[in-house]
Amino acid sequence: MAKVTLLINCKDKSGIIATVTNFFHARNGNIVYIDQYVDTENGIFFMRLENEFATDFDIAELRAAFDKEIAETYNMDWKLFAEERVLKMAIFVSKYDHCLYDILGRFKAGELNVEIPFILSNHKDLAPIAKAFDIPFYHVPVTKDNKAEAEAKQLELLQQFEVDFIVLARYMQIISDKMISEFPNNIINIHHSFLPAFAGAKPYHSAYKRGVKIIGATCHYVTAELDAGPIIEQDITRISHSHSIKDLILKGRDLEKIVFSRGIKLHIQRKTMVFNNKTIIFT
Amino acid sequence: MAKVTLLINCKDKSGIIATVTNFFHARNGNIVYIDQYVDTENGIFFMRLENEFATDFDIAELRAAFDKEIAETYNMDWKLFAEERVLKMAIFVSKYDHCLYDILGRFKAGELNVEIPFILSNHKDLAPIAKAFDIPFYHVPVTKDNKAEAEAKQLELLQQFEVDFIVLARYMQIISDKMISEFPNNIINIHHSFLPAFAGAKPYHSAYKRGVKIIGATCHYVTAELDAGPIIEQDITRISHSHSIKDLILKGRDLEKIVFSRGIKLHIQRKTMVFNNKTIIFT
Amino acid sequence: MAKVTLLINCKDKSGIIATVTNFFHARNGNIVYIDQYVDTENGIFFMRLENEFATDFDIAELRAAFDKEIAETYNMDWKLFAEERVLKMAIFVSKYDHCLYDILGRFKAGELNVEIPFILSNHKDLAPIAKAFDIPFYHVPVTKDNKAEAEAKQLELLQQFEVDFIVLARYMQIISDKMISEFPNNIINIHHSFLPAFAGAKPYHSAYKRGVKIIGATCHYVTAELDAGPIIEQDITRISHSHSIKDLILKGRDLEKIVFSRGIKLHIQRKTMVFNNKTIIFT
Amino acid sequence: MAKVTLLINCKDKSGIIATVTNFFHARNGNIVYIDQYVDTENGIFFMRLENEFATDFDIAELRAAFDKEIAETYNMDWKLFAEERVLKMAIFVSKYDHCLYDILGRFKAGELNVEIPFILSNHKDLAPIAKAFDIPFYHVPVTKDNKAEAEAKQLELLQQFEVDFIVLARYMQIISDKMISEFPNNIINIHHSFLPAFAGAKPYHSAYKRGVKIIGATCHYVTAELDAGPIIEQDITRISHSHSIKDLILKGRDLEKIVFSRGIKLHIQRKTMVFNNKTIIFT
Repeated sequence: MAKVTLLINCKDKSGIIATVTNFFHARNGNIVYIDQYVDTENGIFFMRLENEFATDFDIAELRAAFDKEIAETYNMDWKLFAEERVLKMAIFVSKYDHCLYDILGRFKAGELNVEIPFILSNHKDLAPIAKAFDIPFYHVPVTKDNKAEAEAKQLELLQQFEVDFIVLARYMQIISDKMISEFPNNIINIHHSFLPAFAGAKPYHSAYKRGVKIIGATCHYVTAELDAGPIIEQDITRISHSHSIKDLILKGRDLEKIVFSRGIKLHIQRKTMVFNNKTIIFT
Repeated sequence: MAKVTLLINCKDKSGIIATVTNFFHARNGNIVYIDQYVDTENGIFFMRLENEFATDFDIAELRAAFDKEIAETYNMDWKLFAEERVLKMAIFVSKYDHCLYDILGRFKAGELNVEIPFILSNHKDLAPIAKAFDIPFYHVPVTKDNKAEAEAKQLELLQQFEVDFIVLARYMQIISDKMISEFPNNIINIHHSFLPAFAGAKPYHSAYKRGVKIIGATCHYVTAELDAGPIIEQDITRISHSHSIKDLILKGRDLEKIVFSRGIKLHIQRKTMVFNNKTIIFT
Repeated sequence: MAKVTLLINCKDKSGIIATVTNFFHARNGNIVYIDQYVDTENGIFFMRLENEFATDFDIAELRAAFDKEIAETYNMDWKLFAEERVLKMAIFVSKYDHCLYDILGRFKAGELNVEIPFILSNHKDLAPIAKAFDIPFYHVPVTKDNKAEAEAKQLELLQQFEVDFIVLARYMQIISDKMISEFPNNIINIHHSFLPAFAGAKPYHSAYKRGVKIIGATCHYVTAELDAGPIIEQDITRISHSHSIKDLILKGRDLEKIVFSRGIKLHIQRKTMVFNNKTIIFT
Repeated sequence: MAKVTLLINCKDKSGIIATVTNFFHARNGNIVYIDQYVDTENGIFFMRLENEFATDFDIAELRAAFDKEIAETYNMDWKLFAEERVLKMAIFVSKYDHCLYDILGRFKAGELNVEIPFILSNHKDLAPIAKAFDIPFYHVPVTKDNKAEAEAKQLELLQQFEVDFIVLARYMQIISDKMISEFPNNIINIHHSFLPAFAGAKPYHSAYKRGVKIIGATCHYVTAELDAGPIIEQDITRISHSHSIKDLILKGRDLEKIVFSRGIKLHIQRKTMVFNNKTIIFT
């Protein structure tokens, strides 16, 4: 059994669903999942579909056919994935270890269907963890003066290992526009607040100062504007006046880990689409 | 614009989605919503679909065509609704007023797209509320000795007003098998615990006694076995040792109201299907 | 049995708890509740205490004694309430009815231990609800040109009825500094977002635009800065890309009602203290 | 600065708080935390208090004085802890690794103020994890025929290492009455359901079968009756019809880890008391 996943968006029109489902039916496919959403405000149609073929198929041929028979007509933005292709995920970290531990633990437990070609950091502190989990570690220091050089080194590694997407596991550096344009909607960050509240540095300190009764975490795609990219997942936990900033940081850790891993999983499973700086999440 | 909603389930087979979407496409329909689920354990396919026709259509003719062209072939369990048909909802109550107030408030605010032909109670206490909201109230006392007679009276009213479904807004009486068989998956109850914990009477007392740290509420379809029917919706709230039974009852009220109204809305919008004593909820 | 509730804050010092508990013990009191919190950052001590006297007592005498024996020494900010004194709560509304219905429903159900001398609005729309619940309704229109005059009328009513605190049940007008200074930490607002995100007008529209995955509501004391006062209570609910602005408004209603009523109850029970624009909530 | 923590419960009587606070005040102590609760149903008073002494003190002497001056008079059940004493926590596991990884990760990160003298298992599978974290691992196989012998071995280890309390990190064996009586309210289990629903084996399978819309986890003290001990902490997560048993197990893992670690922390911080098979949690 071979499965393909199709993601499309285009101007909303009558007949798209029938046309697409017929495409697979005509090739003896079996659609095992279909979900769609219409953004009525902008008149955009979104769909995610999983199809199983009982026999072998040629993904390149399928893509060409889909493009010619359907995508062109509807002027679609589309992607067609073969399931056996496992994504390559690079992890960027600085000094905080809790998100890294969490991702690697889930990876070892088989929760994340990816390859992890390397962990990259601007500090050496977490190298032992990479070693303990048998994953190559690259130390690429970033200073005020070497930013361009550091980025060139990063891009080189990303290309060399054919990385598909990057997760920023509390990587405390700004990502350049160039890097973002190389990996559009493929850089995932975890921010430790319920955005848009408390964007930027030290959100737990700001939350404490404001006296909020809930704190949150947000997993989002990185865009040029800091902490303003499309939100993939958010969650919160209750706090009270009696919690110190240190307590918030501790409680927030659990939130960060869970929200981050949920967001990463949705990306791996190709359940996310981005439009107008917002995500459509197919569940 | 005229909309129809289709709900189907049948043995899972290749090609169902294409077949069904073609059915509407061939009639110049526009599918605006489609969602499906496969119960892989039992090999059952479920689908919910909304289709808009630009021009008038005959619902009876459409049903006949669907039955002949598709439903028979796939041996489907199916329903096809025209949207303009507003459901008739009867409310059964005893003495507690909070769920009744909540439903009627939402009804007045236009949240619930139903007609409410009457409120029925085994007590007279809530008659003034019915009056304040201009809804007919029927007092049908239930005693140990008049059960059959009371039920006959209830059924008579339900038939007379062509009631589609019944909501038990803290109606403290057992519903007979006969009544259930007349309204299969059309009697909705709110139970004040996170079922299956604390089924039966006085769940807040039991929750207090057990020392749980969360209490819940469950909205479910009524079946012959008490508090064991298909669950439509559940939610919980946190409590602590410092809460008395009275506190639990107060906190639980808000839960009951919200969980009940969510369940009722899902039913009204035909977003629920029942199979094997479980619900499929299309969202 | 006569109960008093004491709220204090002062510079943190050794021996406060013993001194205060002795004060009541020496008068044959029985302390039935005590909770305290130290803001270690600012070195401030907070305490809430409930004491029962088996026999009658003179609240004025008790206050004088406490002031002389303890409060002066520790330079305390303190309040001592006799429980039998029921607070007078004024309700300000504009045109939205859901919060008003919810408060009045809870009031009738005995959930809120207050008197409601009147409902005031800048529109006439909700007068019938006030009438249905037998509560005086005052229509005080507010225009660009009559602000001072309208406020004078409001203050006159508040004084005439000896109002203790005001709840803004979706009252869509700015509260003047003068009004705030007359009722410091005694004006309670419900804002339909998880502040500090989406302060100001149309938060549901902003939440939709930003593509957040959770929406919230915040109950807070009103201060001169819009939506920036001390937060009493917050809660959230999950949403998805598929929810329209209208859906957010509907889902938000339930949040607003619950968060607002929780905040009002905490205030009525004298479980809140304010310091540095933050609340201490004793539970 | 030396801190002590006092936990007491006794028949509720007037004057307890003043008496106890005076005890510390008279010794130049500074009470930095006090919280109390009265179980009005049973007339029982509970209190937790933290006191700081500016100078050295003799904990044995303090205990003797408290016993003589106060505890005897009020017939108290009480414990007085010196903060510097770090508890010794043994971890029992079988084959599941996620809770073990989580506890050890938190331990390494400094979240859990304990010593971990050893990990014990009836299987050898998790020995490598113990080794990676540098903690002694004991393999004590349990079969139908060697139960008494295995338990003797376990008790010997627990005594040899002066273990204070045991955490069962998905240890799949029944704990004997003898073991429980040696560690009353000192054996902490994580159960993968919102008890009392789905006690016993395979709760995720039962939850799936029942079609609940929420699943939960419960951290509790172990008593003779299976899964019926005093509940320390619970939490839940939402699921839908579309989640398979495997999905529930995956989602449940995160819940188990978080609920378990919260329960363990409350125990370590001596914030729990047990009475009538329920916990009082001081926060």
